[in-house]
Amino acid sequence: MSGFPELLPEQQLVFNRCLDIVRRTFERYGFTPIETPAVERKEVLTSKGGNEKEIYALSRLAAAPGESAETEFALHFDLTVPLARYVAQHKDKLVFPFRRYQIQKVWRGERPQSGRYRELYQCDIDVIGRGSVSLMADAEIPSVIYHLFREMDIGKFVVRINNRRLLQGFFDLAGVPAVCKTDVLRTVDAWEKIGRDAVAQALVNKIGLSETIAKQVLEFLASSRGKSTDEVLSDLRAQVADAQPTDASPGSDDFARGVHELQTVIAGMRSLGVPEEYFELDLSIARGLDYYTGTVYETRLVAHPDLGSICSGGRYDDLASYFTDEKLPGVGISIGLSRLVLRLLDAGVLKPGPATPAAVLVTTMDPSHMQDYLKIAAELRARGIATEVFLEKGRLGDQLKYASRKGFRFALIAGEAEFAAGQVKVKNLATAVESAVPREEVAPRLAEMVQS
Amino acid sequence: MSGFPELLPEQQLVFNRCLDIVRRTFERYGFTPIETPAVERKEVLTSKGGNEKEIYALSRLAAAPGESAETEFALHFDLTVPLARYVAQHKDKLVFPFRRYQIQKVWRGERPQSGRYRELYQCDIDVIGRGSVSLMADAEIPSVIYHLFREMDIGKFVVRINNRRLLQGFFDLAGVPAVCKTDVLRTVDAWEKIGRDAVAQALVNKIGLSETIAKQVLEFLASSRGKSTDEVLSDLRAQVADAQPTDASPGSDDFARGVHELQTVIAGMRSLGVPEEYFELDLSIARGLDYYTGTVYETRLVAHPDLGSICSGGRYDDLASYFTDEKLPGVGISIGLSRLVLRLLDAGVLKPGPATPAAVLVTTMDPSHMQDYLKIAAELRARGIATEVFLEKGRLGDQLKYASRKGFRFALIAGEAEFAAGQVKVKNLATAVESAVPREEVAPRLAEMVQS
Repeated sequence: MSGFPELLPEQQLVFNRCLDIVRRTFERYGFTPIETPAVERKEVLTSKGGNEKEIYALSRLAAAPGESAETEFALHFDLTVPLARYVAQHKDKLVFPFRRYQIQKVWRGERPQSGRYRELYQCDIDVIGRGSVSLMADAEIPSVIYHLFREMDIGKFVVRINNRRLLQGFFDLAGVPAVCKTDVLRTVDAWEKIGRDAVAQALVNKIGLSETIAKQVLEFLASSRGKSTDEVLSDLRAQVADAQPTDASPGSDDFARGVHELQTVIAGMRSLGVPEEYFELDLSIARGLDYYTGTVYETRLVAHPDLGSICSGGRYDDLASYFTDEKLPGVGISIGLSRLVLRLLDAGVLKPGPATPAAVLVTTMDPSHMQDYLKIAAELRARGIATEVFLEKGRLGDQLKYASRKGFRFALIAGEAEFAAGQVKVKNLATAVESAVPREEVAPRLAEMVQS
Repeated sequence: MSGFPELLPEQQLVFNRCLDIVRRTFERYGFTPIETPAVERKEVLTSKGGNEKEIYALSRLAAAPGESAETEFALHFDLTVPLARYVAQHKDKLVFPFRRYQIQKVWRGERPQSGRYRELYQCDIDVIGRGSVSLMADAEIPSVIYHLFREMDIGKFVVRINNRRLLQGFFDLAGVPAVCKTDVLRTVDAWEKIGRDAVAQALVNKIGLSETIAKQVLEFLASSRGKSTDEVLSDLRAQVADAQPTDASPGSDDFARGVHELQTVIAGMRSLGVPEEYFELDLSIARGLDYYTGTVYETRLVAHPDLGSICSGGRYDDLASYFTDEKLPGVGISIGLSRLVLRLLDAGVLKPGPATPAAVLVTTMDPSHMQDYLKIAAELRARGIATEVFLEKGRLGDQLKYASRKGFRFALIAGEAEFAAGQVKVKNLATAVESAVPREEVAPRLAEMVQS
């Protein structure tokens, strides 16, 4: 079924390890898990103008007598719309700021030939306020991302950060007509994909900016390239100082406020220990969605630019305007985990390991001692050591082959001689070193060996 | 959306804790995780004669030009059919015996008014062989169940165990016509629900057994009540001895073999440390599905018999006959986790705890020290302590109220005085005890306090 990824056990274990890292990191920052149903009412999913061709609706395979096979439900295609519905619905029972994470599959009715996923995992965090949310929340998000991807060990990455308010303010200052600003932001967002010249052409020919204004916009967006964060911030402050006294356009306020926000967020990120080489102030990051109003983020793997942004998000003024009149501003990001992990498995950056979560295989060379083997396994499990017993009939050689194929780290071996001597042999399958361990010390000794 | 459960954070955390216990226990026994897509092709799902009215099919909300909105996919309603498809499809890449677990949502097109779940979690384990699987696998399953529910702390439960081969053999011996045996098993399975008299009536009136045979069947099924496992086994052995020399019917072989299997499985369970009071040999357990051929299991909560079986399964001869000619026998069980946990939350057996996974709230009484608060949080997180910083503006009293509402265990408090003295106050929110800790010792001290 193209577009519906399915993994072998040795890949699934890698995927699950990544999921665990995501979850553990989110929780370490005090984000609390929620889970929404895989389905929402159709009108909820189309509330923000979703693409109906890409939404899967549910109907029953056969109608019950006197009923229609139709249902009112469709599968969610992201976790943002369900979050908005959830927060609006339960807001009187939630404590704000509401810091939630959500790791679930989403479904998209892509065409089979598109090569895109039709089922994929998304991992989202958001901090949502009633009325307002501190800018420090914007600083925490990149810190979460930094720690998460570092632990996942996927190579060098850079969190690119910008501020949409700052961009909008600059556009005002540069004389971009107010009605064009959203289009300009959307066009600018394609920079990475279509290149500077194509963006320049689109600004003039499609949007109708003058050559001069288009040039000024492009120069500004490119002005952060190759500069340190502090250099860019200092340039921006100088521009604020230049703009403020001479120009009374509303844009100057936005520009100054945007610069201030960016500066505050970056100071927070530094306090939270995000190293300089893992983030970048990039004025050309715009994020296409109108939804974002302040800080915006993208994250790229340095060795895999083809993957595009592996984690994107930003700040928004109003999460759930379709569902409630109350203003619910927030900031969040989303990781498309399926795409990331499967591509990195393909690329060999993440490597499949064992095909079992267990560390130890208890071999069973003498079936008359099966009850002893089971008891040994029970002792190991009681110490938290994941253990399998070879329950089938088989020569020891075949059992050890099985152990190697599945990737156990240790095999326990005991036959008549060992039982008579009150011992068990422990074989380290990586080094092939065997050692005899007194029967009653097997569990504690294995606990040490598995740890190290 | 009735039938699609959705939890508040304090409930979700309890649910996730249960999911973690399930997962950890499965892995401790060397079951490896797999995950299949939420959808299968329609013909895969109906291969075993699924109820089409209860299967949700997918179609796009709107058709693309020149395409149909129809798809070939439907949502899986259990994890057994997907497992069969998975094993048949990937069998040359899997290592057998294949010990897999699978924890996923399934969907059922129940009527809204039925009060049943339309979306629910199932947690399945199976051991699948190529050609054969040891009876010791049948013994391991109740051991997994025992350890899992003990750790989940859901009160006293009993794993009831029986053997379908033994029942079939007994039916032969009792003179039940071969064509009726499956119907008798299905009828007997309703004992708990409809009572002995209704079963007796059905055996005679619906299936057409003679009064004498029906009575003999019912007496046999009831003969394990109130007896210890060893008493029942000894009775069964006596019956085998009686049956064997005088009766050459094929049934006697099945009966003897069934008794031997049951005996072997129970010996294994004992070696694996399942205490006597947590299991029961119950000859009336039949499981309705034809699919099962040997050992069968049910599990009941002693204090909540109304929940029915919270975990059921058994041994089957052929997992994937629809998908491959190769015989793939196995044994497995399934836990309906959503129903179990939500009912136990309702009943107060499982209690909602904090609304945050974090143990510590760093309060921020002096916003000019925000960067210090963030640094303290970073130090705690580096030690694995889940920590939230109160990022909004608010008086200390309100911040502590927030900490209590969310259920943090500790609040850190530092203002001008504490920073000047190089200290931070740690407040235990359960006891209200405050202690001053030197700034550089905060992280290690909290690590100890959170542990204890």
